[in-house]
Amino acid sequence: MHEIAEHVGGRVLGDPNIIIDGAATLSEAREGDVSFLVNRKYGKHVETTRAGAVIVGREIPEARVPLIVVQDPYFAFTQILVLLYGQRKHEAVGISPRAAIAADAKIGEDCHIHDFVTVATGARIGRGCVVYPCAYIGEGVEIGAGTVIHANVVVYEKCRIGARVIIHANSTIGTDGFGFATHEGVHHKIPQVGGVVVEDDVEIGASCSIERGTLSDTVIGCGSKLGDLVAVGHGTRVGPHCLIVPQVGIAGSATLGHHCTLGGQVGVVGHITLGNHVTVAAQSGVINSIADGQTVAGAPAVDANRARRAYAMIPYLPQIRQDIRTLQRQLAQITAAMNARPPDAAERQDVE
Amino acid sequence: MHEIAEHVGGRVLGDPNIIIDGAATLSEAREGDVSFLVNRKYGKHVETTRAGAVIVGREIPEARVPLIVVQDPYFAFTQILVLLYGQRKHEAVGISPRAAIAADAKIGEDCHIHDFVTVATGARIGRGCVVYPCAYIGEGVEIGAGTVIHANVVVYEKCRIGARVIIHANSTIGTDGFGFATHEGVHHKIPQVGGVVVEDDVEIGASCSIERGTLSDTVIGCGSKLGDLVAVGHGTRVGPHCLIVPQVGIAGSATLGHHCTLGGQVGVVGHITLGNHVTVAAQSGVINSIADGQTVAGAPAVDANRARRAYAMIPYLPQIRQDIRTLQRQLAQITAAMNARPPDAAERQDVE
Amino acid sequence: MHEIAEHVGGRVLGDPNIIIDGAATLSEAREGDVSFLVNRKYGKHVETTRAGAVIVGREIPEARVPLIVVQDPYFAFTQILVLLYGQRKHEAVGISPRAAIAADAKIGEDCHIHDFVTVATGARIGRGCVVYPCAYIGEGVEIGAGTVIHANVVVYEKCRIGARVIIHANSTIGTDGFGFATHEGVHHKIPQVGGVVVEDDVEIGASCSIERGTLSDTVIGCGSKLGDLVAVGHGTRVGPHCLIVPQVGIAGSATLGHHCTLGGQVGVVGHITLGNHVTVAAQSGVINSIADGQTVAGAPAVDANRARRAYAMIPYLPQIRQDIRTLQRQLAQITAAMNARPPDAAERQDVE
Repeated sequence: MHEIAEHVGGRVLGDPNIIIDGAATLSEAREGDVSFLVNRKYGKHVETTRAGAVIVGREIPEARVPLIVVQDPYFAFTQILVLLYGQRKHEAVGISPRAAIAADAKIGEDCHIHDFVTVATGARIGRGCVVYPCAYIGEGVEIGAGTVIHANVVVYEKCRIGARVIIHANSTIGTDGFGFATHEGVHHKIPQVGGVVVEDDVEIGASCSIERGTLSDTVIGCGSKLGDLVAVGHGTRVGPHCLIVPQVGIAGSATLGHHCTLGGQVGVVGHITLGNHVTVAAQSGVINSIADGQTVAGAPAVDANRARRAYAMIPYLPQIRQDIRTLQRQLAQITAAMNARPPDAAERQDVE
Repeated sequence: MHEIAEHVGGRVLGDPNIIIDGAATLSEAREGDVSFLVNRKYGKHVETTRAGAVIVGREIPEARVPLIVVQDPYFAFTQILVLLYGQRKHEAVGISPRAAIAADAKIGEDCHIHDFVTVATGARIGRGCVVYPCAYIGEGVEIGAGTVIHANVVVYEKCRIGARVIIHANSTIGTDGFGFATHEGVHHKIPQVGGVVVEDDVEIGASCSIERGTLSDTVIGCGSKLGDLVAVGHGTRVGPHCLIVPQVGIAGSATLGHHCTLGGQVGVVGHITLGNHVTVAAQSGVINSIADGQTVAGAPAVDANRARRAYAMIPYLPQIRQDIRTLQRQLAQITAAMNARPPDAAERQDVE
Repeated sequence: MHEIAEHVGGRVLGDPNIIIDGAATLSEAREGDVSFLVNRKYGKHVETTRAGAVIVGREIPEARVPLIVVQDPYFAFTQILVLLYGQRKHEAVGISPRAAIAADAKIGEDCHIHDFVTVATGARIGRGCVVYPCAYIGEGVEIGAGTVIHANVVVYEKCRIGARVIIHANSTIGTDGFGFATHEGVHHKIPQVGGVVVEDDVEIGASCSIERGTLSDTVIGCGSKLGDLVAVGHGTRVGPHCLIVPQVGIAGSATLGHHCTLGGQVGVVGHITLGNHVTVAAQSGVINSIADGQTVAGAPAVDANRARRAYAMIPYLPQIRQDIRTLQRQLAQITAAMNARPPDAAERQDVE
């Protein structure tokens, strides 16, 4: 454990000589596993865990289990997972003779191109890339060094993918933007002349769809991470270091700043701007531009605290309506009672 | 018809000698077709249908058409469809020489592995499986007997698929969980060490994404059926015999009991538990754990009956607000009128 | 510019001899680009654009930039984009020897069938079609002339695709409908005997899923356009010339008329009918049939104007509740005050 604590710059409370050779959640950990506590909800599991050590953000007095105290326990645990297990290892397959690679395509050194991959004419793949079976790399596509394209990914012509990008299975980069001009009841296809730029260190989940731009490029900023089944519309610009959770849909020509976080199933309409560090709660619908640093929720989305109080009140709507009817009846009775009194000159006024 | 009625244990009302050689809905049935009535909404079609016979749950007095009365008409109709048409027949293609099968992969007897399939090193496929073109079976994947993998499905390394499973086209099993530790503004990828376990008799729709777990497995319980474009997060456990309708998203580390039903586009947040026999109405957002047997709706989801009454009232919000303003005005007028009266000693109190 | 204006039947205001060789948005246009103004929101950009000419719907007095005035500027701009750039050009690859084409499949003249495509037994592909790598054309599928099937698309057996259809990457046509008969807690698969009919001039986005019908066909009407990640249920009939935006889900046995528009992430339940020219705002949930020409929003969806006013009021729910409590308190005080007065015979009635 000593080495592990040192690896993450942590302070050991308890026996530093315990042997750690695995990692698990508090409730599933066994002897020899390191675990972690971030979410207070799981705090009570520290008392019962069988883990050999627990990474924590602050001391837990009288903890039964050895602790590694660090500033950022989730990040420290991640570092330890990488130390113990590493990231995915890719089989060294070289360039498969069963791949279909255009004569003029350029493949960098140390690439692994699997069977049934297509690399179309003019495509350029940087060094150390891995392209899994049945992926399609379209005409003139450029891919930076160290990028991993999983099985059955499709990259349409002329898109540019950065370095150290990961694109998961069955995703589509550069499909045509949903652009039609409707004239006399018929939808005419608008040529989608722009491309898609996926910057360095982006990760894109499975079965995502990133549309190419109509005139300018669609951009996914460096370091941004997209979950599965995310749809990004044509010409939209996602800034750097955003987190876009599964099933989010962003319409065309939207702009997101850096470090935005969009929860699951969020929808963002086109032609609006989300500033930097904007957070959108799951299932929200964003229809107006949002300033830097805001956290919003609801549909249409408003300040999240306000939305949470408000949406939690929807189930009380029948009661609210009942209360209003009761008030109306009571008021009518009071008015009737007052009108029935012997009139004083001063009070002759219409109350309805 | 006699044989058909016997096949489903039904009681014939009317001529049992009619010949049935097809099946159709009430409105589209022709002579020789059997049809069925489950949804009362379509009851009136029984009077006009041209079907040769109708499967019903209870007698319809004076029905013009012969009836087959059974306890569970939908199930009986299903049995008859299987009798008449069978399930999909798969062409017997054997093991294609155009498939890429690792030398150490094990393929059971009577398997049909199509062209352009990849079976990676260490994978084991049980007997009687069918794997359609361009599917990818990753390193060390295990697949039980009688399973069908449709075209372009991707199964990442080390996932385990049970027996008699059906996975539809373009779905992805075992993509990386959406797990990042954000440290100083950069999202660091957390190794996703767990796998995915798809138990026996599961069916998964097209373009689904089932993430592998971070530390423990993601599990889809036996007999559960997932629609198209469903996203299941890392480490989530879906119990047996659940129905997950298209476009549902379930975040990571959630737990569903058995016989849960999730309507279309439902979202379930992570780290919560839905009990057994929980039903969630379409488009709902579930953010808290739900007890056994509950039916919920809305976002955030509450008891479905309560939610239905409440959400139906949202369009009346402008009226509600108007009513409140009217009440406020009336009350102000009453108060003014009362204060204008010659004061009685007893009533001197401030009502505002 | 003269030729361009003539091409779209437009009237030139300003110098007709400017040379146009590109197109761009107002804010990104450079000298030599034509641009357009449709959305008034961007009106101010006309004053600052560097475009060589701007297509507009009506004259802009004192505009600094030459204008082309047309009735339908968006359509005119589309025509000019087609003139300048054309639609996607497909590489002429002929019939690849690396495609797997059944001996009895029929491929029309001038088709381009890429590597790793499967065309199963009995399939018929019309003339001038393009089928990209790793697409799967199932048994007995029929495809009309001039259709483009992008990479990794899967068309299940017996589906019929019309002429001039475009199906984008990773989409699935004809997967099994989500149909199960639950009997004693077990979900029994209902054979999905129907097919899918995609009529002429349809475009389908990436990673869509169109289920085959249980008994009758699922239909996508001619000229309809579907965005990415759209799910269409079994037996549903989408009329001609509809626009179905990304991530929409339509359950089974629904019917849409012609010229319907469904916004992003809309859900439509099964067994209902949307008339002609129905518009549904993004994220709405449609649970009842909708008459011709209606525009609806919300979940459950109601008239859109009404919905917009109502949903915008949800954030005021806490205030509404507070107002009601204040009214209740005030009314109680008034009642108390009135009851405290010396009773007049006429006013003895219970107001609570």
